[in-house]
Amino acid sequence: MGNTFGRMFRVTTWGESHGDAVGVVVDGCPPGLPLAVEDVQVDLDRRRPGQSDISTQRRERDRAEILSGVFDGLTLGTPILIGVWNEDARGKDYEHMRTLFRPSHADFTYQAKYGIRNWKGGGRASARETVGRVAAGAVAKKALARELGVEIVGYVRQVWELRADVDPNTVSAAEVDANTVRCPDPDAAVRMIEKIKEARKAGDSLGGVVEAVARGVPAGLGEPVFDKLDADLAKGMLSIPACKGVEIGSGFGGVGLTGSEHNDPFYSAGGRIRTRTNRSGGVQGGISNGESVILRAAFKPPATIVRPQETVDEDGNPAVIEGRGRHDPCVLPRAVPIVEAMMALVLVDHMLRQRGQSGAL
Amino acid sequence: MGNTFGRMFRVTTWGESHGDAVGVVVDGCPPGLPLAVEDVQVDLDRRRPGQSDISTQRRERDRAEILSGVFDGLTLGTPILIGVWNEDARGKDYEHMRTLFRPSHADFTYQAKYGIRNWKGGGRASARETVGRVAAGAVAKKALARELGVEIVGYVRQVWELRADVDPNTVSAAEVDANTVRCPDPDAAVRMIEKIKEARKAGDSLGGVVEAVARGVPAGLGEPVFDKLDADLAKGMLSIPACKGVEIGSGFGGVGLTGSEHNDPFYSAGGRIRTRTNRSGGVQGGISNGESVILRAAFKPPATIVRPQETVDEDGNPAVIEGRGRHDPCVLPRAVPIVEAMMALVLVDHMLRQRGQSGAL
Amino acid sequence: MGNTFGRMFRVTTWGESHGDAVGVVVDGCPPGLPLAVEDVQVDLDRRRPGQSDISTQRRERDRAEILSGVFDGLTLGTPILIGVWNEDARGKDYEHMRTLFRPSHADFTYQAKYGIRNWKGGGRASARETVGRVAAGAVAKKALARELGVEIVGYVRQVWELRADVDPNTVSAAEVDANTVRCPDPDAAVRMIEKIKEARKAGDSLGGVVEAVARGVPAGLGEPVFDKLDADLAKGMLSIPACKGVEIGSGFGGVGLTGSEHNDPFYSAGGRIRTRTNRSGGVQGGISNGESVILRAAFKPPATIVRPQETVDEDGNPAVIEGRGRHDPCVLPRAVPIVEAMMALVLVDHMLRQRGQSGAL
Amino acid sequence: MGNTFGRMFRVTTWGESHGDAVGVVVDGCPPGLPLAVEDVQVDLDRRRPGQSDISTQRRERDRAEILSGVFDGLTLGTPILIGVWNEDARGKDYEHMRTLFRPSHADFTYQAKYGIRNWKGGGRASARETVGRVAAGAVAKKALARELGVEIVGYVRQVWELRADVDPNTVSAAEVDANTVRCPDPDAAVRMIEKIKEARKAGDSLGGVVEAVARGVPAGLGEPVFDKLDADLAKGMLSIPACKGVEIGSGFGGVGLTGSEHNDPFYSAGGRIRTRTNRSGGVQGGISNGESVILRAAFKPPATIVRPQETVDEDGNPAVIEGRGRHDPCVLPRAVPIVEAMMALVLVDHMLRQRGQSGAL
Repeated sequence: MGNTFGRMFRVTTWGESHGDAVGVVVDGCPPGLPLAVEDVQVDLDRRRPGQSDISTQRRERDRAEILSGVFDGLTLGTPILIGVWNEDARGKDYEHMRTLFRPSHADFTYQAKYGIRNWKGGGRASARETVGRVAAGAVAKKALARELGVEIVGYVRQVWELRADVDPNTVSAAEVDANTVRCPDPDAAVRMIEKIKEARKAGDSLGGVVEAVARGVPAGLGEPVFDKLDADLAKGMLSIPACKGVEIGSGFGGVGLTGSEHNDPFYSAGGRIRTRTNRSGGVQGGISNGESVILRAAFKPPATIVRPQETVDEDGNPAVIEGRGRHDPCVLPRAVPIVEAMMALVLVDHMLRQRGQSGAL
Repeated sequence: MGNTFGRMFRVTTWGESHGDAVGVVVDGCPPGLPLAVEDVQVDLDRRRPGQSDISTQRRERDRAEILSGVFDGLTLGTPILIGVWNEDARGKDYEHMRTLFRPSHADFTYQAKYGIRNWKGGGRASARETVGRVAAGAVAKKALARELGVEIVGYVRQVWELRADVDPNTVSAAEVDANTVRCPDPDAAVRMIEKIKEARKAGDSLGGVVEAVARGVPAGLGEPVFDKLDADLAKGMLSIPACKGVEIGSGFGGVGLTGSEHNDPFYSAGGRIRTRTNRSGGVQGGISNGESVILRAAFKPPATIVRPQETVDEDGNPAVIEGRGRHDPCVLPRAVPIVEAMMALVLVDHMLRQRGQSGAL
Repeated sequence: MGNTFGRMFRVTTWGESHGDAVGVVVDGCPPGLPLAVEDVQVDLDRRRPGQSDISTQRRERDRAEILSGVFDGLTLGTPILIGVWNEDARGKDYEHMRTLFRPSHADFTYQAKYGIRNWKGGGRASARETVGRVAAGAVAKKALARELGVEIVGYVRQVWELRADVDPNTVSAAEVDANTVRCPDPDAAVRMIEKIKEARKAGDSLGGVVEAVARGVPAGLGEPVFDKLDADLAKGMLSIPACKGVEIGSGFGGVGLTGSEHNDPFYSAGGRIRTRTNRSGGVQGGISNGESVILRAAFKPPATIVRPQETVDEDGNPAVIEGRGRHDPCVLPRAVPIVEAMMALVLVDHMLRQRGQSGAL
Repeated sequence: MGNTFGRMFRVTTWGESHGDAVGVVVDGCPPGLPLAVEDVQVDLDRRRPGQSDISTQRRERDRAEILSGVFDGLTLGTPILIGVWNEDARGKDYEHMRTLFRPSHADFTYQAKYGIRNWKGGGRASARETVGRVAAGAVAKKALARELGVEIVGYVRQVWELRADVDPNTVSAAEVDANTVRCPDPDAAVRMIEKIKEARKAGDSLGGVVEAVARGVPAGLGEPVFDKLDADLAKGMLSIPACKGVEIGSGFGGVGLTGSEHNDPFYSAGGRIRTRTNRSGGVQGGISNGESVILRAAFKPPATIVRPQETVDEDGNPAVIEGRGRHDPCVLPRAVPIVEAMMALVLVDHMLRQRGQSGAL
């Protein structure tokens, strides 16, 4: 239970890291949307392992197949099944830790919850599950772009203590993908890449912050009081593996301001009501206000490190686990398309909800 | 739409700030739970306005009435309706700003979304809506305490730049409620109270951070991959008015650590598998691991300030809005029971979900 | 759990028969809909006990109060709380059967499910719960009439073996309410009323069939494959107390026809595609086709009879239960507004869903 | 939207009749359940076309593949993806009716709803979609049998006007599958088969009634007031293609009885509270009472017939449609496993819900 996201644009991911395949069913995509497998592949390629020298060397081509819901290049309004076959699954790499709980992984909690787990590569808890999210997110992005003109850009804002300088109002997807760390501040990117390589060499790992902006979101999206736009975005972010925090607009930093410093004054421009500043991050009272929606998601350093660590086995006996095999020293570059996907899924869902209620949009 | 929270313990709040009443329907509360109106009143009193000299002076007694779902002092398993009548609603206070959009309030976004709004006191966007949450949270807390022995303690961790020193493993509810700012660090509390009074005098407002801990949560709660325990907690927090960020465990601070510094080693103690550190905040892979669940929620400074501010009216004409009337210079002390309530609602919902799947708990 | 109906127009009823009050929260009603308490009262009066000499003599005025969600006579798009206070609740009437299970009532099953029950008047299982449905249905009817021009008419088609002759395409609400049994065939109505009085005298009860038609439903409502329009209508009907069957269009009678006899040929008229016959009952493949939506719901004879019956007590000891007190010899006339309400709730929910997906309607 | 069924045992089907594949994702299956592809295949073989000389001659082997959620022969508690590749899809058979609306099919309503449709073989509206239901139902049956000892038996009760004599309390699956029409009354079966062959020869089609019984259901399943066990069963039935009616227990026939004739007296036997008769069909107040749950579903004659019929094209021009190609003169035998599957899906979902609330079962 819990593998479905969204109320009207409903996304259900399936598949284990070292099972036969991973994928997603998208239910509720508006009919008549042009959709080709290439639309999906672009984002899968940005998420896929082995794409650069700073990501894991697991070799997956991650070729998407669309098995239903599209006819003559258009969505039918029926469920869209997108699947990817696992190719480079080496279950044997995990044989030696079959009964050990890897620290800060989900081995122990899955065992505690289900009484059983696929011990190969984290099974369902692996970030490989996000293949389905990214595929669905690509569909959502297309729908948002076509129906509302919304554009979503995510990028690495911070790796470890290295912070980038980025203007969310102007940053472009091309700038993001211009380097392997997906940081549109070229100087920071160089330092981040260097730091990641250093961490890899040390068998260690690094966390960071992804920032994402949705531009062109109309005012009126979000369903108070529980399904606020920012609340659903927060859930979407924290549902991503390794994410430990999220903030919208001013976020934790806004705590240090007073109300008179923090409030966003309204003004009129070109027949539209705008705010002079955007500390609200495009959301007020849980509803979009027409400004850019901006969020940041914090990712912890990956739990997989190539170092001996203290742990226990399934019976509680002390043990030392020896990391080895392929590992991702820093997931941030690959997390960018995942953050974008979750943002798109939330926005498209709220677009459909608002349209249902208002009869417009 | 969007006024219901939870899948099995389903909470639907209703009511506008200056309407007749506010309240909640709780559907899915386990039958046979002892429940008296006093159980609910205790937390409502901690949330209620006018409770101290650092909160708003709106005078509401907030007397709860339970109209259904309880019989001879026990829950029936049927919907529990809890209502509170609005008493000190002064709609006229808002007459002068009937067509103005208050900066960083939800006036504009409600108008944009619904094409209509109750302009008296923020209507549904008012924090008065949280009466229903706190009432439902009190029921959830009882169920959690009785069935799992879970204890939830929230407290003010930060006001503006003033940070408190608190140990989440030992802090008690009594320490929290020992002062009006609900900060269990007495020295910090004094400074916070002073700062809040200063802000009030200046007609300004202050934000801050609430931290909350749930102790005694068994391993196994949380539903990967989307309904992770931390993802639902994040949604719950961001659904609270004025909340702009949330973090679990190490959160944004964890970004500066390497994996070898951040991982929580496992060990055995008393027949239980534990972690030596708790940077995970009690959640791994979206599932509780038996350690204390710890989160922090960031609240922006309240938008209501007693100062002239630039804005526009409904037609987009420039205007200056003059704040006046009752205002809450810092919502943090009153936010504590709301944060606790949302945490309880998430935990009890996941308790029921896990019980359904596992047949145990 | 299970007290909410609908996905976008979400209705949650609450309240026990002999508790303080009964009512409903409606979440998702489109904003800007004119709504007065009188709109709701009209249908409550048609449902209310004691309205005629062939219904139960419990005296409830059933005066509706709207406590939230409406402002200056218009819906706000926020939850609408409608409540009715119980006035003539005589819990003592049930004292003698406190530990007995009334045959074909829900006493035993509630006890088995919840381990506790409100033994006064059936508690939550009482048809009194339908007050909330009828109130919500009145709101739904208004939305349907205003936004789509849909008109819903229900009526008693059969009491016991007495069948009425009614043309669903032309029957009017006035004809239905012209007599106390709500059967628009005047001759059949006379016989039905006589038969019901006879049953009352005998301390017995009668079942029957309510038929309902929705005229003016546009083509395109219904969400295959599970949330088909007819599937949701079927659920809505069977959720009404005492309902044991439902059929759409030809229903069980259609089984005796061959395909060539049963199919509805298409033709064009006035720029619209129509069917010459309507054995489909306005629904094909789970989606409305623009013809009248027609269903029939079978109601068993009420379980409450004024006769000694074999039963057991809570410990399983044999006992004889003596019916006494107020009883409804035939619920059919009062079931009419309930059937209409459920039909309206399903239709309005699917209107909003379709509008969300198509961007039109 | 609308392709998911169940709240805790969540089933999402996907796939078009003439697309690449059809299948299902099952989310919420309890972990640790032994599950092999053969478990699923057994029921798929009972549903598959071409299985006998009275069903359609489309040749599909319908070989199931389980791509996720099972590990070492046990369910993981994660989503189970089951797919079947379409093999004998002859889209060209439909080329001549590409722009025509087949009477009483869903061509017109899909076009009206979505503005687009897969015109090959009904696309998503085809009964081929039920492959996913039957696969999921097989999983549900296993869970019910293992955890509660529930046994579900469906059978053909009526074809056209031909009725069978069957005792739901004793009928066995072996008796049902002893003949190709799946009617456990051998005499009636002979007549039914003959009648079906006759209809095929005439290019016509026949409807009928499937009855199904669930034995061993414990008291306490079902969630009043909307998610009653019988309400969810009714929805499940009407969601099956061609189903036009459903009844529980006495159903429409019970209308002709008085309360004193219809009520089921309670008695004690073997420490259990039982009813002497079972006109309630095992459900009282929407909750199972421990007796056999019995329902009947009415299926209209299939819309596909091999005869010229009046219709219109997409532009509303009159046309004659000539049926040809493969057709199923009577879907009843193949509907049996589908009815069983939907019954199992409803029961297992309510098992999990009740377990969650009660902490037992």
